[in-house]
Amino acid sequence: MKIKHLLISTAIIMTMMASSCDGSKGSAAGGEKCDVDTTKIVMENILTRTSIRQFTDQKIDKDIIDNLLKAGMAAPSAVNAQPWAFVVVDDKAILDSLNEVKPWFNLKTATAAIIVCGDMSKAMEGPGREYWVQDCSAVTENILLAAHAYGLGAVWCGVYPNQEIIPGVVKVLNLPENIIPLNVITMGYPAENPEPKDKFKSENIHYNVW
Amino acid sequence: MKIKHLLISTAIIMTMMASSCDGSKGSAAGGEKCDVDTTKIVMENILTRTSIRQFTDQKIDKDIIDNLLKAGMAAPSAVNAQPWAFVVVDDKAILDSLNEVKPWFNLKTATAAIIVCGDMSKAMEGPGREYWVQDCSAVTENILLAAHAYGLGAVWCGVYPNQEIIPGVVKVLNLPENIIPLNVITMGYPAENPEPKDKFKSENIHYNVW
Repeated sequence: MKIKHLLISTAIIMTMMASSCDGSKGSAAGGEKCDVDTTKIVMENILTRTSIRQFTDQKIDKDIIDNLLKAGMAAPSAVNAQPWAFVVVDDKAILDSLNEVKPWFNLKTATAAIIVCGDMSKAMEGPGREYWVQDCSAVTENILLAAHAYGLGAVWCGVYPNQEIIPGVVKVLNLPENIIPLNVITMGYPAENPEPKDKFKSENIHYNVW
Repeated sequence: MKIKHLLISTAIIMTMMASSCDGSKGSAAGGEKCDVDTTKIVMENILTRTSIRQFTDQKIDKDIIDNLLKAGMAAPSAVNAQPWAFVVVDDKAILDSLNEVKPWFNLKTATAAIIVCGDMSKAMEGPGREYWVQDCSAVTENILLAAHAYGLGAVWCGVYPNQEIIPGVVKVLNLPENIIPLNVITMGYPAENPEPKDKFKSENIHYNVW
């Protein structure tokens, strides 16, 4: 009977350990409930993300797209202006039309795209007006990192400020005048598995003064 | 004796479980070895990051700064130009001089700053030249997210393209002509604990066409 009790206790403890390994205590280094190294998990997600341009035909659930957009809108912005807007495209005909604007949008096999846009009606006035580009770039990086965490592949395809590309994207998506497309994030489940580039270069780093 | 063996086995199993909860299998959703939800951990790190402007006097280890820069340089860049350079400042006198350029750099209590710069000698030529801003913004977001994962606080303080601020930063850091400061990332261990803003707005999202 003692062994049986011990086995039951062990099973309960192991179940508790397993269910507490979800990092729900947030992002601080080291888990409070078990030895989950959340810092390492976050770093690895950043370091292993790489551009993916070939996709399977598996669709992306709307819930996942919503979470990618939540991650995007969590980005910081100058004076908290949040000068952004999004077009989510999963209609194959529209993906094809976008790809005709620039074939290097790589939308041929993509099942979805998020077009991250600047909303000029929300952008700062004055010398900080152009900060919308940086704000929306932070948004984009959040979306790319979240996509990678969900096992998706994605690639950031630049639009603004290239005046050769902007009008075509505006036309396909019927964007109003105050909305500027910054990029096309091409997405889907990966059909390729490229090695992430190691881009760390110590010569890029200077200490205190150049 | 049976109980003793069982206790030893249990201890071994629990140690194995704990040590396998480091998410070392990468960023795919769900852990292979235990129930670590790496997707949730990455998402939570993105969603709970917020700007921190008050810091304790605890210094940041050089190893951690190096890892933040590794995270930064893992960002994507247009045509993989990697048009970036970094100045890491932890000298109090230089932090103070930077703060005199713009007091909203919030460097008063900061123990370090990373100035993310564009390196124009590496930036694309032609209509994509200005993509360095977006590349370096992705770098910055990676650094902010990595800092949060390490339990650090940080705030992104914009510099470029504000011509009122650039010359002062260039002068203090002795930047060469081809190096443009994009921002000052003010950093340290948090002495404040503000609630992250919920910035999700469904009205920002459009489907297929505007």
